Amino acid sequence: MTKFDEATQAIRVDETTYDVCLDPGYVIGGPLNGGYLLAVMLRAVVDASPFEHPVTTSAQYLRAPVPGPARVRIEQLKAGRTAAFTRATLVQDDVAQIESLVTTATLHGADPLYAAGPAHAMPPLDECVKLPDPKPESNMTLNAQMEMRFDAPTIGWLRGEPSGRPESRAYFRMAEPQDPDPYVLALAVDSLPPVVFSAGARGWAPTVDLTWHLRALPAPGWITLLGSGRLVADGWFDEEVEAWDSAGRLVAQCRQLARVGRG
Amino acid sequence: MTKFDEATQAIRVDETTYDVCLDPGYVIGGPLNGGYLLAVMLRAVVDASPFEHPVTTSAQYLRAPVPGPARVRIEQLKAGRTAAFTRATLVQDDVAQIESLVTTATLHGADPLYAAGPAHAMPPLDECVKLPDPKPESNMTLNAQMEMRFDAPTIGWLRGEPSGRPESRAYFRMAEPQDPDPYVLALAVDSLPPVVFSAGARGWAPTVDLTWHLRALPAPGWITLLGSGRLVADGWFDEEVEAWDSAGRLVAQCRQLARVGRG
Repeated sequence: MTKFDEATQAIRVDETTYDVCLDPGYVIGGPLNGGYLLAVMLRAVVDASPFEHPVTTSAQYLRAPVPGPARVRIEQLKAGRTAAFTRATLVQDDVAQIESLVTTATLHGADPLYAAGPAHAMPPLDECVKLPDPKPESNMTLNAQMEMRFDAPTIGWLRGEPSGRPESRAYFRMAEPQDPDPYVLALAVDSLPPVVFSAGARGWAPTVDLTWHLRALPAPGWITLLGSGRLVADGWFDEEVEAWDSAGRLVAQCRQLARVGRG
Repeated sequence: MTKFDEATQAIRVDETTYDVCLDPGYVIGGPLNGGYLLAVMLRAVVDASPFEHPVTTSAQYLRAPVPGPARVRIEQLKAGRTAAFTRATLVQDDVAQIESLVTTATLHGADPLYAAGPAHAMPPLDECVKLPDPKPESNMTLNAQMEMRFDAPTIGWLRGEPSGRPESRAYFRMAEPQDPDPYVLALAVDSLPPVVFSAGARGWAPTVDLTWHLRALPAPGWITLLGSGRLVADGWFDEEVEAWDSAGRLVAQCRQLARVGRG
């Protein structure tokens, strides 16, 4: 069992309840990473499902849970022949923290009838750059779990040179030896710095709502994350992330609606 | 009150219950249109919310409700200063039909910090084409509620000439005099023929999961719907729809995951 497997473990208490322990290694300046929290919830949902894969996940971030014990509450809504529908709630201290609707099914990896190519070309891995290590006092423990190599212009905001449009692109893998799987993808699709930083905004950008689709099981190796956005207005922005595996297949699609930080 | 307003009316019974009557005018060959059903649910959610607009809606289509009486069950999850979170369930004959999570907030129409342009140019309205009128026995009552003018190549599948990629683009407005509003947009984002028809697939393509975001309040006039998809594989396809208003603003974004039809 890898460290990530352990950090996302969900232990069955009964048909509708799983015990989890939220890991302090996935913190971004205070709150826990939203993708990590989904990975934890999805462990419980898939364990309770007759199917193998979390094909769609829609989540509302009601509150910001803290590291430590929590529970995933499961409600089976319907199980059909090809998919099952589940409501899952992450609960801490008896208070709902994240509410989600998850569709599970089993993907078989059949050849696609149609597959679009990536919307952006990435520079080769060795031309991409790391983020500077976070200062210990910033409480960014998440960074140590992952390796990311950025398409340099998309982190120009770090030195005061935002590209002027919402974007963020990087290669991603876990720091420990860990092949990507649906749970790693749940983390990956929410691991980029907010795309709105490239559009000139700053500050904590809380996710309100996130939906992601697992489209195929990822091949071993780096995941390519292509992040973009269409509109920053009225204090809201959309962040669209596509995840491509090392075999060049689209493995996940994600869109979140988030609030623009106050600076 | 317009016919659409009436068809989507939700009458408050108590804090958690609204009575609705699903209108036989929104049928597509048997089932009711998924966007129409969301519009009905959103009437109840917004009525019960301290905020004015349904900013994000994620829905799971568990079953296919039929025209006639139904209820919307509301559960308030959290109300904060800028947004409220609600679970809404469409129930018919005591059985849950659609499960949803909705975020309400109030949009103010501030000038955007960043706005991308449409991903596709549309031909002028008078160069776009109507779908042939459905045969009465096809039970497509939905078509009479809306006027749509299609970018011709995206309905080439009708005469056996699919474009080879998932796409569907059209101008949209209600057939009766009715300015677009968030409820009309809920219908609009699910009103295009499935994009997968253009990729060569046929048959009923049931939506499993749909998430849409209201990004701005639409100006009066035609709505432009730009539909596309990234991957058709393993019996699943994604359908992405952007809605643009007559003032050239992105007013809604939608993605659904649906099953490829069998026939």
